[in-house]
Parts: sequence; C-alpha cells; structure tokens
Amino acid sequence: MSSINLSKRVPFLKWAKSYNRTTFVADSVAAMVITIMLIPQSLAYAMLAGLPPQLGLYASLLPLVAYALLGSSGPLSVGPFAITSIMTATALAATFPEALTSEYVAGAVILAFMTGAFLLAFGIFRLGFLTNFISFPVVTGFISASAIVIASSQVGNLLGISTNTSSFFEVITSTAQHIHQTHFETFLLGLCSIAFLYGAPKIIRALVLKLTSSYFIADSLSRTAPILAMLGAISVVLMFDLEHNGVVLLGDIPQGLPALALPNWQPINWDFKTWKSLASSALLISIIGFVSSLSAAQAFAAKQRQRINPNQEALSLGVANISAGLSGAFPVAASLSRSAVSFNAGAKTPATSAFTAIGMAVSCLFLTPYLYSLPVVTLAALILLAVLSLFDFNAMKRTWAFNRQDFSALFITMILTLLNGVEWGLVSGVMLSIGLHLYRSSHPHVAILGRVPATEHFRNIDRHDVMTDPEIVSFRVDASLYFANARFLEDRVNELVASHPKAKHLILMCSAINDIDASALESLYDINQHLKDAGMQLHLSEVKGPILDRIKRSDFLEEMTGNLYLSHYLAWKDLTNQPMAGSIADR
Amino acid sequence: MSSINLSKRVPFLKWAKSYNRTTFVADSVAAMVITIMLIPQSLAYAMLAGLPPQLGLYASLLPLVAYALLGSSGPLSVGPFAITSIMTATALAATFPEALTSEYVAGAVILAFMTGAFLLAFGIFRLGFLTNFISFPVVTGFISASAIVIASSQVGNLLGISTNTSSFFEVITSTAQHIHQTHFETFLLGLCSIAFLYGAPKIIRALVLKLTSSYFIADSLSRTAPILAMLGAISVVLMFDLEHNGVVLLGDIPQGLPALALPNWQPINWDFKTWKSLASSALLISIIGFVSSLSAAQAFAAKQRQRINPNQEALSLGVANISAGLSGAFPVAASLSRSAVSFNAGAKTPATSAFTAIGMAVSCLFLTPYLYSLPVVTLAALILLAVLSLFDFNAMKRTWAFNRQDFSALFITMILTLLNGVEWGLVSGVMLSIGLHLYRSSHPHVAILGRVPATEHFRNIDRHDVMTDPEIVSFRVDASLYFANARFLEDRVNELVASHPKAKHLILMCSAINDIDASALESLYDINQHLKDAGMQLHLSEVKGPILDRIKRSDFLEEMTGNLYLSHYLAWKDLTNQPMAGSIADR
Repeated sequence: MSSINLSKRVPFLKWAKSYNRTTFVADSVAAMVITIMLIPQSLAYAMLAGLPPQLGLYASLLPLVAYALLGSSGPLSVGPFAITSIMTATALAATFPEALTSEYVAGAVILAFMTGAFLLAFGIFRLGFLTNFISFPVVTGFISASAIVIASSQVGNLLGISTNTSSFFEVITSTAQHIHQTHFETFLLGLCSIAFLYGAPKIIRALVLKLTSSYFIADSLSRTAPILAMLGAISVVLMFDLEHNGVVLLGDIPQGLPALALPNWQPINWDFKTWKSLASSALLISIIGFVSSLSAAQAFAAKQRQRINPNQEALSLGVANISAGLSGAFPVAASLSRSAVSFNAGAKTPATSAFTAIGMAVSCLFLTPYLYSLPVVTLAALILLAVLSLFDFNAMKRTWAFNRQDFSALFITMILTLLNGVEWGLVSGVMLSIGLHLYRSSHPHVAILGRVPATEHFRNIDRHDVMTDPEIVSFRVDASLYFANARFLEDRVNELVASHPKAKHLILMCSAINDIDASALESLYDINQHLKDAGMQLHLSEVKGPILDRIKRSDFLEEMTGNLYLSHYLAWKDLTNQPMAGSIADR
Repeated sequence: MSSINLSKRVPFLKWAKSYNRTTFVADSVAAMVITIMLIPQSLAYAMLAGLPPQLGLYASLLPLVAYALLGSSGPLSVGPFAITSIMTATALAATFPEALTSEYVAGAVILAFMTGAFLLAFGIFRLGFLTNFISFPVVTGFISASAIVIASSQVGNLLGISTNTSSFFEVITSTAQHIHQTHFETFLLGLCSIAFLYGAPKIIRALVLKLTSSYFIADSLSRTAPILAMLGAISVVLMFDLEHNGVVLLGDIPQGLPALALPNWQPINWDFKTWKSLASSALLISIIGFVSSLSAAQAFAAKQRQRINPNQEALSLGVANISAGLSGAFPVAASLSRSAVSFNAGAKTPATSAFTAIGMAVSCLFLTPYLYSLPVVTLAALILLAVLSLFDFNAMKRTWAFNRQDFSALFITMILTLLNGVEWGLVSGVMLSIGLHLYRSSHPHVAILGRVPATEHFRNIDRHDVMTDPEIVSFRVDASLYFANARFLEDRVNELVASHPKAKHLILMCSAINDIDASALESLYDINQHLKDAGMQLHLSEVKGPILDRIKRSDFLEEMTGNLYLSHYLAWKDLTNQPMAGSIADR
C-alpha cells in the first residue's frame, strides 16, 4: 500500500520504471527546443517582474527538476511565466517603494516561498476545487487585461525612455509625458526585433520545408527565431557600438549557478501591512498559476487519454515554487505557449523538464558573459509578441454573443484589473460571477402546464395548444430549489392561487429539480399551508429519487395535503376522474 | 392609467372605496385588542432598545398611520418589534460610548430615518429579491440567537441589578459578578409577573368560556393579561410603597403627542466611522424588518387568496420608518405575534392600523401619568415571555434531520451572532449559505447510464441491471452547468475517457440541465476537443429547448464531432446500429 501511495505522490517513481531509449530521445529533443525558447523568455520575464535578469535563469533550473520528480504531465513547461511575472512586479511595486533595492529582491524570493506554500496547501488539503469559482469570463477578462498591462509596461523599453510602472494608467500618462525623449536607435532596434520575431518563424519554416519534407524539423527550427533575434541584436550592438550610443543593454550577469539559501528576511521591515500585502499577492499568484498550469496539463493529458490529478499538480507546483525561492528566484508556473511547443516537439515524460534544467544550467555556466551586450529592447519586443496571444478577442466575441451577463463579468474584471490592479480585478470578478449566478438562479424558468390532447405529455400553456382544467393548476419549475429561489417559488404559487379562483389542486411537477435545501423545504411547508388555507391541495409529481430520499428525512409528506405521483399524467388522471384524492398515488 | 398606478402605490385608495360598516366594526374590534397589547409592548421594546419609554409610544402612532395608507395587509401590526429593538440597542451601544445621552437618542432617530431610506430604496428599485439570499437556516439561527441576547439583556432588570449590556458575554459575566446584589423585592415582583403573564391568559380564557360559548370573546379577553399585569404591578408598587424600597420604576413619561421634527444632527460627532456604523446597522435592521414583516403579510394574504407585492410592502415599511424618525422614535417593523392576534381578532383592512394609532394617541394623552409607578421588572417579564416563542428549537431539529450542511449554517450564524453581534452573525451566515450552495452544486450528482433491457429507458449502471456497450459511454449530469461545476464535468469526462479505452462515443444526456453559462460552454468546447484528440465523438441527447436556443448562439454545434439527439434511446440506436454517425440525428 505505502509504495502505491508513494508512487502516487512521486509520479517519477512510476514513469521511471518504463523509461527507455525511445522516450529518452523524444524527451531530449523536446528539451533542446524548449531550452532554446526558454533562454530569452527567462531573461525577458525576469525583466517583466522588475528583477535582475539572472533571476529568470535561476527560476528555470531547480523548479524544473522539482516538477520532473513530482509532476505528471510530460509536456508541461514550468518556469517563468508572463502573467505571474507581471503579478510579481505589481505585488512588489505595491509593497516596496523603490525598485531593485535589496528588500525588493528579497520580497520576490519570499513571494516565491509563499506562493509555494499556498500551492502545497491546495494540494495537501485538496483545495484545488476552489479555483473552480474563477469563471471562464473572469479568467478571460483577467488574462486579457494582464496582456494589456504587460504590453504597456514594455512601451517605455521599446521607446528607450524610463516610465513609472506601478500601475497601468501611470504607465500610460508617464509614457505620454516622456514620448518626446524617444531614443531613436533603441526604437529602431525594437521595431526590427518585432519584425524579425514576427516574420522569421514563418520564413524559416517555409525555407526548411523546401529543403526537407519534415514538418518536425521545420517547426523546431522556426522556434530558434527568438535566440536568433538575440544573437542578431547582440551583433548589431557590437557592430555599431550602440552601448555608447545610449541603447540600454542587459549588462553584467553573474556567471554560474545560484547558491541555494533560505530566504533572507533581514532587508524587509516586517510590519502587518507588508505581510498582508505579500501574502494576498502570493495567494492570487498561486491561484492564477495553478489554473493556467492545470488547464494546460489537462489539455495535453486528454490527447493521450490520460488524466491529471489536480491536487498532485498543485503539490508539484508548490514544490517548484519553493525551489524557486531556495534558488533566490521569483514565482513560477507553467507557460501554455512553451508547453504547447514541448508537446509538439514530442515530450513524453516529465524528464523533459529535467533535461531542460540541464540545458539552462549549461547556459548559466557558459552563456552569461555573452549576454552583456543584449539590448533590453529586444527582450521587450519578445514580451510584446508573446502577450499578443494572451489577449483573447475571440473569447470576448463568443461570450458577448452567448450571454450578455457573462460578458459583463468579463468586461468588469478587465476594466477593474486595468483600473485598480490584478487583485481588485480578480476578486471583484469572482464576486460578480457568484452574484450573477445567484441572481440568475433566483429567477428560474417556470411554466404552467397543460395536457397535449390525446397524449400523456404536459407542456407550457404559453407555447403549446394544450388542455387545462379550471380545478387543477399544473406547475413546473426548471431549477433546483434553494434559498435564493425558494421565496420566488412561494410568490409564484401565491400568484397562481390568486389568479385561479376555481382551482382546487396544484400539482408541482418536480422533474427538473436536482437538489433541494432546508430553505426550499421550508417554502414547501409554507406553500402547503397557504394552499390549505385557501382550500387547495398540493400534489407533487415526478420527484427524482435522491430528492424524495431527502424530503423523507422531514415530515413534509405527512403534512402535505395532497399526494405524490410517479408521473404528471397519473396525477392529472387521478384528480380529474375522482374529485376526492385517489388511492393509486404512490405515497 | 395614472389613477390605476396611484391606487397601486397607495392601496388605501383601493380598499377605501369598498369600505363599509361590516369592515369598520371588524377593524375597530381588532384595533382595540391590538391597542391593549401594544401599550405594554411599546414601553417594553423601547426599554429593550435602551431608550426612554415614551419613544415606544411615539413609534406606535404615525408609523401605523403611514402603513394604513400605503400597506396592503389588513392584519399586519407595524410598530416596535423585539428583534429590531435589540438590533437598535446593539447599534447604538456600538456607536456611542454612553447610553441615554442626547447623541444616543439622536442616533436612534437617525437610525429610523436610515432604515426608512433603505426600505424605500428596496421598494423603488425593486431590490426586495435581495432578501432571498438570507436562507432559512440563517434567519432561524439569527432570530434564535437574538432571542437569547434579548432574554439575557433582561436578566439584570429581573434581578434588580445593573449590568453592562453591550454584548452577550459581557451581560453574562457582569450578571454573574453582580448576582449577590440581587434586589429581593424586584426579583419577587418579576417572578410574580412571569407567573401571571404565563398563566393568566389560559385561566381567563377558561373562565370566560364557562360564561359564554364565544371563542372570540374568550381569546380577546385573554389578550388583556399584559395590561392587567401592568395594572396589578402598579397597584402592588403603590400599596407597598416599593418605590422607596428600591424597586426601579418607569418614572415620569411626558404627557401628550410627540412634536414632529426633522432629525437633530447636532449632538452627534459625524465622522466616517459613525456614519458607517449607523448605516450598516440600518441596512441590517431594514433587511430583517422587511423579511419578517413580509413573511407575516404573505402568510395572512394566502389565507384570503390574496397576494402581497413585496416592493409595495418595502415602500410602506420605509415610509413607516421615516414617520418613526419624524416622531423622534426608533426603527419599526411588523411583529408576527401581534399580527397573528390582529388576524384572529378579525382585522380586514389596513384601517386597523389607523384605529390602533388612535388608541395609542389617546394613551399618550391620558394614560402616561399613571405609568409613573409601573415597575421596570414587569416589562422585563413581558419581554422574556415574548421572546420565548422566537427561539425556534423545532426548526433546528428539523434542519438537523434534513441536512447537516444547512444545520451548520444555522449553528454558525447563531454562534457568531452570540459571539460577535448581530452584524457579524448575519453577514457570515449569508456568506456561508452561499459558499455551501456553491460547494454543493460544484459536485453535482452524475451517473453512467445503461439501457434497461427491452425498453427505451436508460438508468444509472450502479443502481440497475442494465446493458452497456464498450464503444459507447452514456453519461448524465444532474445539475445546471455553470462555472463552479464546469471543470468538474470536464474532469469526470477525462476520467471516463481514461477508464473506457475502447469507447468511441460519449453521449451526454442533458435532461437535467436547466441552465448553462459561458464557463460551462467553454468546458463543452474543451470536452469536445479532448474527446476528438482521443479519437472519440461527443453527442448530446435530450437537450431542453431554452438550453438549445442558448447553445445555438455559439458555434458549438458546428464544432461538435457528434450529433444532437431528441432522446437518449435514439442516440443509442443510431450509434449501435451504424458504426458511422447516422443521418437520423436532429442536427
């Protein structure tokens, strides 16, 4: 038993057994492709988080090893991720007054630890389901707003001007104020980088396909565009001595691997406000990181008829984040775009992550000196193109067409994220989603029914030509009954009683009732009493088994003036044939 | 049109037309019974609110006239109410440091105005439905806890000691500390009052029934017990000169009617905290007042096959509270117990309220001098017996048997109301109810179906002997699909795909799906894609009309790999007979 549990908690033990040469080759190739993608991305996302570039590299080492041991998705590419990086930047800017101070960097490390702790808690206490309360419109609105925030944060780098980046509108206004200081060479280099990053993958792919018929080779080589852009930009900088021309370069990056260490608490002044601010940011980062990583992992698992255990994923992401903290880096998550590339490159097991970590370690050891001359604007161009895909205009259009209320949740989440920052946007969006759900289900669809002539079917009298009887009101409610709609039901029944002065029976058709809570039961008692006072009987038809079991825990059926019928037709037949309550009822 | 609207807004204009001698006699008799009940109650509930006794009388004049003009329920008895009085006491104690100062009394008046304003807003903006979010367990827990708080607040009066009354536990501990100071004469008078108030109604009723056969006269005369208790207690005080013996008396009450005035803002130091504290208390008082008044009004209306318009009731209660403020009194609501007496005494129209107001005005003008010697302990006894009926032990037992989760909401509301006060209790209870609902509906009941041999019926394979086909997975979900359960559904389908390696078709039976939101639609897209990636087709069966209409607003049906079937049986027949997707599907 314990070994089964262990291999469930450490999936590595399971897949390592059947590891062979084929999977090794597949994983290694995928890891190579991902390493080439991850080098520029890790630097760019560290910059996005407002942190020194080497922290991006550090976030791409140990966390990947942790995921390889504990994670269960082969293609999932854990590491720096655009959304969690901008959330890190926002959290640090809100907590610490000055960027890149020692407390600022220490704060990022502690954020990674806290994020890891929350994710571990999700995994251990099986709280992963809580993320279900973040609805699709809220996620879409939030991610799209984040894309706008990320893009706007890079406009300054693109123009070669320094802007205030603590909130979206400050970025916009400070960019507008400084736009006349635009540094021409930087801007030109930026535009060239964008053009190259946009066009090169397609051109490379087309050229390679002329030489070989392998789509795999063509696709893989097209992924080298970002690293080619880096090499090209470094060459241009060196060739035209752009460093002394005022183009901002990445500068010195410490060579070698990070020293593992527990977080350094000293630089931070730990008052309650700091704690609260960092912890609430870490909670949101862990939720968003978990939601996006899980949906990516599930999508790839489905393609192989596998299943992902959400709690195990939370656990492995938790350990990955704690490893990031131990490495002195910032919060990590899975990047959907990198994971998709990894899947297409043939990644089979989480060993891909471990091999990628080896590639990144080699880069740390040998590549860093050559990164000195990498212009920051090229990384900004990389970020800009990467976030384009995050702004999900199609999902917005689809949601607008499908349901205006859901769209309003999307739109308000987006606007509040832009206006008040990520935390406000997300929390308001979730509350709005819940409010809309409650509002919608508090006004369920109800129908007065009549009999379709010569059949046993009963349909809405407003939509069909049906027979009715003045002494019988047939009523169907298309919703589970719970506190938010219990009084609505009571009210509608009171209305029916008032508008059908000759009625002696009300048959409530319960075929659409999937659940019933104590408030709804109380309303049924009230309805029964109100009908009794008005000289009418209450009957129930087509009650589902689990609902009947539940109602039987109370004495409602003994209190009820009428009968319980298996079908609405039986109720109708019984009550029209015999003025007195019949005996064929299933009571 | 405008006259119809006006009579809808001022129900008085409607019922006054058909007012005749019969209704006049019925209403007058009921008003007389209610006046006799209301005189002691109004004094007692003013004491409960921590305010001078005459304010209880003032709260029983103009607000009743306002309700007579705008309200639509004949028997509803608006005026001082135990629950809103204790809420007023709690609100004032939390906002102002010292009781019975001028700012304390001014605070009560402003609370009445604010409560009126909230209720008016409920009526005008049709927000009455918001009170539906207070579930039955929360109301029960809240009211029962309030009964305990009210009872404990009167223990000091009963023992003749002064206790701190700002929170339940302070009352308990301070009572325990001062219990040795118990004033013997006061306590004895209190016990006698309780015994009389408990026993006299039954004895009077039995005696009268020996003299006459009219239950109406017997019941009406038994309602005089409280006023007889008052007269008896006053006599005892005068006879034994208990005033100089240390028994606390009501003392001087100003004679005459209240002067109408706008609220006096001067005594209060209006900082933001004061505003927030009073406004949030007023909001809760208006919600609780509205919920209890409305449920009483609806119960009586149902007995006469009438219907109460909740928004109109909110409006009339709003104006009643503003009238209470204009009279210098505190928030009012309908008392369920008084309203029940009024109904039984034959009240037909809201004129009953107006006639009661006349009776109370006469009391203000001529009765007040005689109230000087009324001992406070008799009023305490009256309150204690009145709140006994509020502690709803039966509802607790019923909820416990019916559903433990609902009971936990009830229990936590009760405990938090006792521990942290009414606002905390109510707000936490509502949030807990919503959380429980979301949790419950995020794990809906699902079933894998098989065909009942030789029928067209499909049932849960775990409960019935049914036929299955290894190539077809039949799946039913018993819930409306929305964000909280959308990923649950995805996850279950992924599980099914992994556990049915031979399956080629998944038929989702949608007969229990009453609603679908954008998140659920997105999950359907994902499920369709996941199944496609796994080489399976997704089919839907028995989709309800409104759901189909909604899905058709998206391109899901074009994307879906399988077909749409009118019945699950048709799907099964089609997919088992023809390996390729058939053509009889209703697409």
